[in-house]
Amino acid sequence: MIDVALLGTGGTLPLPNRFLSSALVRYQGQLTLIDCGEGTQVSLRKLGWGLREIGTILITHFHADHISGMPGLLLTIGNSERGKSEPVTIVGPKRIRHIVESLRVIAPYLPFPIIYREMTGDPHDEINQGGLKIRSCIGDHEIPCLIYRLSIDRGPAFLPDKAKATGLPVKYWKHLQRGETVTYEGKTFYPDEVLGPPRRGLSLGYMTDTRPNQNLVEFLSGVDLLICEATYGDPADYPKAVENKHMTYAEAALVGVTTQAKQLWLTHFSPANHNPEFFRPQAEALYPHVVIGREHQTTTLAFTD
Amino acid sequence: MIDVALLGTGGTLPLPNRFLSSALVRYQGQLTLIDCGEGTQVSLRKLGWGLREIGTILITHFHADHISGMPGLLLTIGNSERGKSEPVTIVGPKRIRHIVESLRVIAPYLPFPIIYREMTGDPHDEINQGGLKIRSCIGDHEIPCLIYRLSIDRGPAFLPDKAKATGLPVKYWKHLQRGETVTYEGKTFYPDEVLGPPRRGLSLGYMTDTRPNQNLVEFLSGVDLLICEATYGDPADYPKAVENKHMTYAEAALVGVTTQAKQLWLTHFSPANHNPEFFRPQAEALYPHVVIGREHQTTTLAFTD
Repeated sequence: MIDVALLGTGGTLPLPNRFLSSALVRYQGQLTLIDCGEGTQVSLRKLGWGLREIGTILITHFHADHISGMPGLLLTIGNSERGKSEPVTIVGPKRIRHIVESLRVIAPYLPFPIIYREMTGDPHDEINQGGLKIRSCIGDHEIPCLIYRLSIDRGPAFLPDKAKATGLPVKYWKHLQRGETVTYEGKTFYPDEVLGPPRRGLSLGYMTDTRPNQNLVEFLSGVDLLICEATYGDPADYPKAVENKHMTYAEAALVGVTTQAKQLWLTHFSPANHNPEFFRPQAEALYPHVVIGREHQTTTLAFTD
Repeated sequence: MIDVALLGTGGTLPLPNRFLSSALVRYQGQLTLIDCGEGTQVSLRKLGWGLREIGTILITHFHADHISGMPGLLLTIGNSERGKSEPVTIVGPKRIRHIVESLRVIAPYLPFPIIYREMTGDPHDEINQGGLKIRSCIGDHEIPCLIYRLSIDRGPAFLPDKAKATGLPVKYWKHLQRGETVTYEGKTFYPDEVLGPPRRGLSLGYMTDTRPNQNLVEFLSGVDLLICEATYGDPADYPKAVENKHMTYAEAALVGVTTQAKQLWLTHFSPANHNPEFFRPQAEALYPHVVIGREHQTTTLAFTD
């Protein structure tokens, strides 16, 4: 199970009643934050899932609305009751260390270590944070921007009937279930004998800021939830979307359709879009169950079988 | 007349419903911002006095809660309809340029020039921003911190009876009123002949973060409004105030009394102070008309005679 919360839905600048776009992912008690604009720590506090459990921060790119809250958040994590030896891992495009360290001119002393991890958008490069696997692909934006795919694997089903047939006493079954081999009374038992075929895990895509393209659609194919930027609602703003390297609602909906995302949440609305719900039909025409993102909206991605 | 608004009243970190401590000063259509923490631009937008008219930003010191909103605010001013040739002057302690330029790693392109002006806390060093005079004194904090005094002068009163007695026609009086001399029918008329004695101007003190001391009391003597930090409400927190170089409500009230400030607003409340009004009696016992600062509280300092 993965819990996901939207912390904000705004692009460019924070507004009264609209935090900057950001998301929080909870998996096995650990929190992963995606993007950290000005005010994200306030939204985190309102959400109430905790702050000191943030072990990983993923930054999509270095535009201020996606990273300006970093020094404040790090200080706030530092002021929490977090264990001093627990590092925070900060993942981002090339130069992530330089950018965050520059911002830390006002947050030089932190009680925990920071681990920096650059990603270049090579989809084969994977980070495993306690079972949550993070991969990225490079978006099409004004500056290098990472589109993230977060996923967890799921082990094959344990088949008790097959286990019983092996003759191995029940108390040893758990080892086979974990993928270990067991030698008992001179005979070796293998996990394959008691496990079913591989099963589908869970995955989440976070796609902002970017133009859509085939590469990204392939990278995000089949996600359970796609959180996708939809900066412009009005179809008349399509030329702006192209020029500023963003997407319209309709384009985001099309990405939802072509990736076959099970759920689609739109976010990163332009400050000029005063009522994101107003343009819903633009997306709904293509992806009927589209969700127009709202702050502190949450969901739990769970195995369906 | 000077309009003053409190943009936030929080110390250390921004909270839901409590912006970081900051104030806005309006004089002759120009805005001067004092401190700019994470979220200050949101509070500015809520207040509604405008953003693009901000010509001067005064920074007290380089703790994140007083400056972390700078890159975002500069970008937002840049996105406003501000004239591109109008500079923003940023005033602060030594290294202000280095600190702001480091933060600008995420805001490298701005359409207006920035003028940096260091102040060392020499009370004789004065900046005149369109008639608003800015002086500073060094506070007693963990790092160099500027306590600001903003003031406007007031010209002497024009005395029509005296003007009439000179025999100069009425249409030339305005020149004398402005301090100019007038030569009319071979005779020279001087402003002194028609003006009264010098008159008291208006002034505002902004005192955070610091311990109180005699130096600061003298520097802020006689201000019309003192906005003063009062981080700790509970008298039991006095040792913390000493250790962390802040003030209690009672200490702030005593500063109000000894400076003979006409109005006293408390601000910069600790995040642990959930209800700043609760500790009001601590300050009221010393300064009866103390104001426990609230966001977007405003006043107009006006000449009384």
